[in-house]
Amino acid sequence: MAERVFGEIAGFPVGTTFPDRRGLHDSGIHRPLQGGISGSGREGADSIVVSGGYEDDRDFGDVIVYTSHGGNDPETGKQIADQELTVRNLALAKSALDGLPVRVVRGAGGDPAYSPASGLRYDGLYFVEDYWQEKGKSGFLIWRFRLVKEPATPQPPANPDAPAPAGPALRIDTLVQRLIRSTVLIQKIKELHDYRCQVCGERIETSAGPYAEGAHIRPLGKPHDGPDVLENLLCLCPNDHVRFDFGGIVIDDDLSVINADGTKIGALRTVPKHSVNKTYLKYHRRRFSPA
Amino acid sequence: MAERVFGEIAGFPVGTTFPDRRGLHDSGIHRPLQGGISGSGREGADSIVVSGGYEDDRDFGDVIVYTSHGGNDPETGKQIADQELTVRNLALAKSALDGLPVRVVRGAGGDPAYSPASGLRYDGLYFVEDYWQEKGKSGFLIWRFRLVKEPATPQPPANPDAPAPAGPALRIDTLVQRLIRSTVLIQKIKELHDYRCQVCGERIETSAGPYAEGAHIRPLGKPHDGPDVLENLLCLCPNDHVRFDFGGIVIDDDLSVINADGTKIGALRTVPKHSVNKTYLKYHRRRFSPA
Repeated sequence: MAERVFGEIAGFPVGTTFPDRRGLHDSGIHRPLQGGISGSGREGADSIVVSGGYEDDRDFGDVIVYTSHGGNDPETGKQIADQELTVRNLALAKSALDGLPVRVVRGAGGDPAYSPASGLRYDGLYFVEDYWQEKGKSGFLIWRFRLVKEPATPQPPANPDAPAPAGPALRIDTLVQRLIRSTVLIQKIKELHDYRCQVCGERIETSAGPYAEGAHIRPLGKPHDGPDVLENLLCLCPNDHVRFDFGGIVIDDDLSVINADGTKIGALRTVPKHSVNKTYLKYHRRRFSPA
Repeated sequence: MAERVFGEIAGFPVGTTFPDRRGLHDSGIHRPLQGGISGSGREGADSIVVSGGYEDDRDFGDVIVYTSHGGNDPETGKQIADQELTVRNLALAKSALDGLPVRVVRGAGGDPAYSPASGLRYDGLYFVEDYWQEKGKSGFLIWRFRLVKEPATPQPPANPDAPAPAGPALRIDTLVQRLIRSTVLIQKIKELHDYRCQVCGERIETSAGPYAEGAHIRPLGKPHDGPDVLENLLCLCPNDHVRFDFGGIVIDDDLSVINADGTKIGALRTVPKHSVNKTYLKYHRRRFSPA
């Protein structure tokens, strides 16, 4: 079996269309003839097909909220069991963890705003920014993945019948404002904690000064739409930031830090001028154990 | 004084030209009327002007090797003392550490291959990928910064007299091959060490499995041109990766791990199937103490 290839496939630029899954397979853009996710839990996912099979999927063009098809009845396609973070779901989670690019193919049958009228279209590279568990419309648990367009990948062509997006000038202004705000707040949270991790207390020293990261508790952006405020931020070392974002640790309402196996491993460090909003902590906990 | 703005400035898209530094100042793209670097060590650098003042600078279009003007005689411009990692140099180092975007302005007088014939031109956002100390042509120590184009920023317009770059098809092929190779090797180094950090021994657990990072000892890409081989890689936790890349720790020929203040803090963990090439360790040490 050929080695799994991450990133662009030479000879098949963004926008290439395919009449069917066989042609898509032959190109190397997406190898499986049936499954929506190509990948393994050990290596990560190299490509997905978004073709509207799932009732909970959402497509914003530059952001896709994707749900895999585990737990479905093979006859009816209806979900009949909770999904687990194994096999193909684990492949997408691994891509998020390792920051691997995922080739995205849109098929007819997906959201009409961004999908081709017929066949399949390669739409370029996306990154899996985060993933979480929730109750789907069926009442069973599903795992959802938020994919965000890699900056050099063009926006997919919008269907002319779809409502017009905001003008480019407005969009740039909004982006600029958001970046400034976020930079200032993240700088502030780090200074409030003197660059000390709120979980482990470590302060990383470098030749350019101390290093820490501002971590959003409820993530920004669709579909989470967490607010960019101090009460939604933590000051973390990169190790605990990875653990926090990928379900290695959660934080209880009493500010206990809890391991994935449920063990309490410590208490969140606090400073007088920074309090954390418990609604956001709960949102974060539910991402990994929706109970 | 206005708040320092990182990222794009609304109303001044990439390619905007300015007859002089006054016009550039008024736009907000680059505030200082004289200095090449706008920024502070606490906040980072928000913009630089590349205008060929420095004999050691190199401009590859998508990559710039930049040297600031510290240690120069104000009359002659000649370097008369070692540069230190303070003030403006520290601002650029901080931008590297925090991953902040830097607005790049090219001025007439820079490398003719990519610089405007007259005046100044805003060329978009770059990231400071790394920085290091070395002996400049003058014999004094300088700090150099490698800036890499943010993916959505267009390549600067090349001077028609400059030699033609390789065709796009060839370039894509090379990029694809490089990405595949790098992904496979980084996966391999992590598996060889079972995702355990070679400096601290920590293994980070997440819902998607263990997490570690592959760190190049001698960086890839111009001007370092480190090789993409296992002997040039370490398996590190993100905390030690930050320390290693930003001069918080170096590794001696006997594999001792040395703090920035010279204290030995431990020994690099090794496994039978992975040996580190000492030439690369030496290259890394010299980046932060060229002795």
